[in-house]
Amino acid sequence: MTRIVCQQLAPRIGSLDANRELSLNAIAAAVAERADVIVLPELVTSGYVFESAQEAASLAIPVTDPLLREWGAAASRGDAVVIGGFCERGDDGKIYNSAAVVDGSGVLGVYRKVHLWDREKLWFTAGDAAPRVFDTSHGRIGVIVCYDLEFPEMTRTLALAGAELIVVPTNWPLVERPDGERPPEVTIAMAAARVNRVSIACCDRVGTERGEEWTGGTSIVDENGWVLASQTGKGPAKALIDLTRSHDKSMTRLADVFGDRRPEIYGAVCEPQADGAAASSGAAS
Amino acid sequence: MTRIVCQQLAPRIGSLDANRELSLNAIAAAVAERADVIVLPELVTSGYVFESAQEAASLAIPVTDPLLREWGAAASRGDAVVIGGFCERGDDGKIYNSAAVVDGSGVLGVYRKVHLWDREKLWFTAGDAAPRVFDTSHGRIGVIVCYDLEFPEMTRTLALAGAELIVVPTNWPLVERPDGERPPEVTIAMAAARVNRVSIACCDRVGTERGEEWTGGTSIVDENGWVLASQTGKGPAKALIDLTRSHDKSMTRLADVFGDRRPEIYGAVCEPQADGAAASSGAAS
Repeated sequence: MTRIVCQQLAPRIGSLDANRELSLNAIAAAVAERADVIVLPELVTSGYVFESAQEAASLAIPVTDPLLREWGAAASRGDAVVIGGFCERGDDGKIYNSAAVVDGSGVLGVYRKVHLWDREKLWFTAGDAAPRVFDTSHGRIGVIVCYDLEFPEMTRTLALAGAELIVVPTNWPLVERPDGERPPEVTIAMAAARVNRVSIACCDRVGTERGEEWTGGTSIVDENGWVLASQTGKGPAKALIDLTRSHDKSMTRLADVFGDRRPEIYGAVCEPQADGAAASSGAAS
Repeated sequence: MTRIVCQQLAPRIGSLDANRELSLNAIAAAVAERADVIVLPELVTSGYVFESAQEAASLAIPVTDPLLREWGAAASRGDAVVIGGFCERGDDGKIYNSAAVVDGSGVLGVYRKVHLWDREKLWFTAGDAAPRVFDTSHGRIGVIVCYDLEFPEMTRTLALAGAELIVVPTNWPLVERPDGERPPEVTIAMAAARVNRVSIACCDRVGTERGEEWTGGTSIVDENGWVLASQTGKGPAKALIDLTRSHDKSMTRLADVFGDRRPEIYGAVCEPQADGAAASSGAAS
């Protein structure tokens, strides 16, 4: 059984020092909860609502920055692994919206957000690699960031690669929803979990930043698509899951959500897209 | 604006005559509701819980069967289009779990279910063509059947092909769910609608058949992923939607759920799948 803890935080825009303290305290608190896997929000090192590409660049850190090693050292007190978002300065000098997977041995890997949301396009370079599964001491963990979740191809890719858990550091801007409904992104996570039979842990942020409000929609969803934990009140969202249940893709004796796939039918999903493709494609009838 | 009406029915297993009357009455009642698009459940002509391939074959009808033309004639009294499931005997002699799109001019097209659920594999041949969009007098309608919905590649394919509405004749077997939750298939429809910005109308069945209970989860979901109508009580589920809203895939000025896609990253989704692929694929780290 794996104990997953999501720490829904309110980073302070522009303050690397304050966010260092915030994230290290959150990791220590998660370790005190006996977390195995600790998830922090997107861009927890820097804050989100940049005013310029220059501001984003000024807050970017390389993967070799001591902070990421400090995350791992803090997590190692409980033999945990941490996944958190950071504003990355790549070796190529470009700025990425990234997530690091870290444990006591250091940085196991970095994922660079492929689908940039809205004004992120003004300051970040999009990642150009498919999402990956990282082998950790607490399971095979796939990582995507925020808006990536809204592309079902991404969660599918991770599940097909054998992810036992998908984690999603996120900053979900608050959007309108009908009374009584969950945030739409949570519904998307529930569906992705169920159709892939894999657990998904989304760690959102809170607070208001330069007028932007966030959803605070942190949710840990099991492989049946049910929300096991959300973050309400002060404690973190936490759930205990047998991640090996993700190995079983069967629904009945004769139905299997992977065995029943028909990739030879899905070609349109992978085809290059022309501008206006949707509007101009012909209907068959 | 397009008025969509789903008629959640209880077909009688094995009785073509009773189901003919049931379906024609349902179409007439939907026309009385001023329906433009009428959706009937999966296999509404035959019932679902077959005991043998022979039984399924004995209830199969060809696409030229007078019943489908009768559906169109009944719908034409309100200038409506009907989409309903039927047990099809193909020209090739094989038996398919199909859906027909019919109006007063006759059968516009047939879709054969690609993903067969559980014991359906014992009596049906799976369709081998990608789902299609049918041009109708009430919009460009994409059709899939039941379990197909649980493969996000299918709804994506239809949306990319320009579907303005996706209809899903279905027979959802009742499954366990936590108190207060929607049927999991409805959550999947909500997510598929939102990530593709296209409305989805799922028409389920009710009744108990040879011990099998159904969910009765009929739901009409708008392009934001919200459920506009379910079927409770005696009347059908109905909703009035401006289907042209599906043409706009933007979320903000700089975010567009189609324009932001990265098909060059999604190759794994379309790759042929080896047996046990999920378990044996290597992780990258």
